[in-house]
Amino acid sequence: MKTQAILLASRPSGLPTAAQFRFETLDLPTPEAGQVLLKTLYVSVDPYMRGRMNAGKSYVPPFAVGEPLAGGAVAEVVESRNEAFPAGSVVVGNLPWQHYSLADGKSLNRVPTDQAPVSYFLGLLGMPGLTAYFGLLDICQPKAGETVVVSGAAGAVGMVVGQLAKIQGARVVGTAGSDEKVAYLKQLGFDEAINYKTTPDIAQALAAAAPAGIDCYFDNVGGPITDAVYGLLNKHARIALCGQISSYNDAVVPTGPRPEGKLLTTSARLQGFIVSDYFSRWPEGIAKLTEWYGAGQLQFEETITEGFDQIPAAFLGLFSGENTGKAIVKVA
Amino acid sequence: MKTQAILLASRPSGLPTAAQFRFETLDLPTPEAGQVLLKTLYVSVDPYMRGRMNAGKSYVPPFAVGEPLAGGAVAEVVESRNEAFPAGSVVVGNLPWQHYSLADGKSLNRVPTDQAPVSYFLGLLGMPGLTAYFGLLDICQPKAGETVVVSGAAGAVGMVVGQLAKIQGARVVGTAGSDEKVAYLKQLGFDEAINYKTTPDIAQALAAAAPAGIDCYFDNVGGPITDAVYGLLNKHARIALCGQISSYNDAVVPTGPRPEGKLLTTSARLQGFIVSDYFSRWPEGIAKLTEWYGAGQLQFEETITEGFDQIPAAFLGLFSGENTGKAIVKVA
Repeated sequence: MKTQAILLASRPSGLPTAAQFRFETLDLPTPEAGQVLLKTLYVSVDPYMRGRMNAGKSYVPPFAVGEPLAGGAVAEVVESRNEAFPAGSVVVGNLPWQHYSLADGKSLNRVPTDQAPVSYFLGLLGMPGLTAYFGLLDICQPKAGETVVVSGAAGAVGMVVGQLAKIQGARVVGTAGSDEKVAYLKQLGFDEAINYKTTPDIAQALAAAAPAGIDCYFDNVGGPITDAVYGLLNKHARIALCGQISSYNDAVVPTGPRPEGKLLTTSARLQGFIVSDYFSRWPEGIAKLTEWYGAGQLQFEETITEGFDQIPAAFLGLFSGENTGKAIVKVA
Repeated sequence: MKTQAILLASRPSGLPTAAQFRFETLDLPTPEAGQVLLKTLYVSVDPYMRGRMNAGKSYVPPFAVGEPLAGGAVAEVVESRNEAFPAGSVVVGNLPWQHYSLADGKSLNRVPTDQAPVSYFLGLLGMPGLTAYFGLLDICQPKAGETVVVSGAAGAVGMVVGQLAKIQGARVVGTAGSDEKVAYLKQLGFDEAINYKTTPDIAQALAAAAPAGIDCYFDNVGGPITDAVYGLLNKHARIALCGQISSYNDAVVPTGPRPEGKLLTTSARLQGFIVSDYFSRWPEGIAKLTEWYGAGQLQFEETITEGFDQIPAAFLGLFSGENTGKAIVKVA
């Protein structure tokens, strides 16, 4: 059996381009005992993958040049030699960017098909939703009446953060990169939303949107938005440092105003994290998110691109802010 | 009755000079019911006071121009209309820079005269010691075998941090600004000490001194030393952000490499704090520090300047790194 695959052709310097990706046809052996043959249904494209395209260490080991890229995916079992994953069942796991792939059961989780669209297990009920859940509720711990700011608020993580903060009774301010996204955030229940691309003075806009100061900051973006937030922190503010998409493509460490002075005088806490830090608590998170979704308290949005050959374009689109919510590629 | 006082003559821009201080003779009324008349014995000069000389808010409200400066001091009660503080007792409190002053009992604590030199209640058994105690043990939480780095290690706080970290079984690396200070740190039991002023490459020197990476960082200084530490953090590192003396005299927020990327990929936690955040736990801290000091497990060092008129010079000396340990002025 053969399958098409997308390989890392070369490491990018700065912004990746189509030249970093190569399509190849690979041979796929017959599943051995314990293995399953998977047909990829949906592929997740995520900002963190940019870090894995570099040679240096990031959250997770780098992708190898000449090997398939990989990431979160939903797939259907088409042939099974593993009782836990019968043919026809739907699974989520870390899978190569291929139409078909082999996997043992260790890295797979079966997902129900009756609770939400199965692609949501790459979004609201998957890593982005869990990232929002633990970053907001465990690190930021917003109290009713406090002000929460979320950067990258119209992304898959940010939109869940904002809704969870509203469930906690907080005032919620989001930043995003288009008027459409700002309108969408208001529709989700955000108290204020700022288009950082058209706002002449982000610090002034944030100060107006957070007149009582900022108690919690969930940062997906970094850079000038974050600089402005630091200047508005209340005493004992909590910052969940989740992403820095504004600098993922920088070849050298960017410079900016040193934040330590502001963090010191406000006794603020800043915690970097990755969702795998909370691995043992994922079942709790999925259960709570599923419950809120089922009760109509959480909405979710996907930007779905169609076609296996569009995976690189969907990934590259993350860095021009094209997607609202979770960027997904529908493969089959 | 009259007393000499030191007033804030004008707000400094950048490094303060002698021109910021004015000596005046003030009238002192007779103590009212509940008040005591105090004779100042020792005055503490501390880096944080620089922040109070600015108009803007810092940890604590700014000093007023034309009013006496104030800070931690040890004094003797010479006349008492408060039963809790009989004449002859020794107290510690926040007092104006005056030979004599009036106080009610609310801001004073009596100190024992038989456990340590009374000036230690401005150092090892006072705010600096408590700052070290809570910052290291509550925020950094070093485990045996982990590596702790302390910047400004030969200062009043840093030298206690390093010794407490040794008591916890950690490997301890300190940075300081002279070979004499480095030698002193070694004598205190620091595993490695680096003279940052003569080391050509602070990042390389820290990497050599912390070959297993850095688990805990107690930062008194900020700037390039801190930048280098960020690059060597281990996963789940803890940073106690205690001071930024390298930038207290900067007129604008200094720029530097953005730290968020490193804090993110290591899931590090950075906590700004001031010792008053732990006010309710001060008795615990003083008791433990007194116990370790009594058992010979903690040493302490003071740089004592003699004479009331030398208070401004002793304060200014903090910013040229003249003192080892606690900078104290003996007034009477």
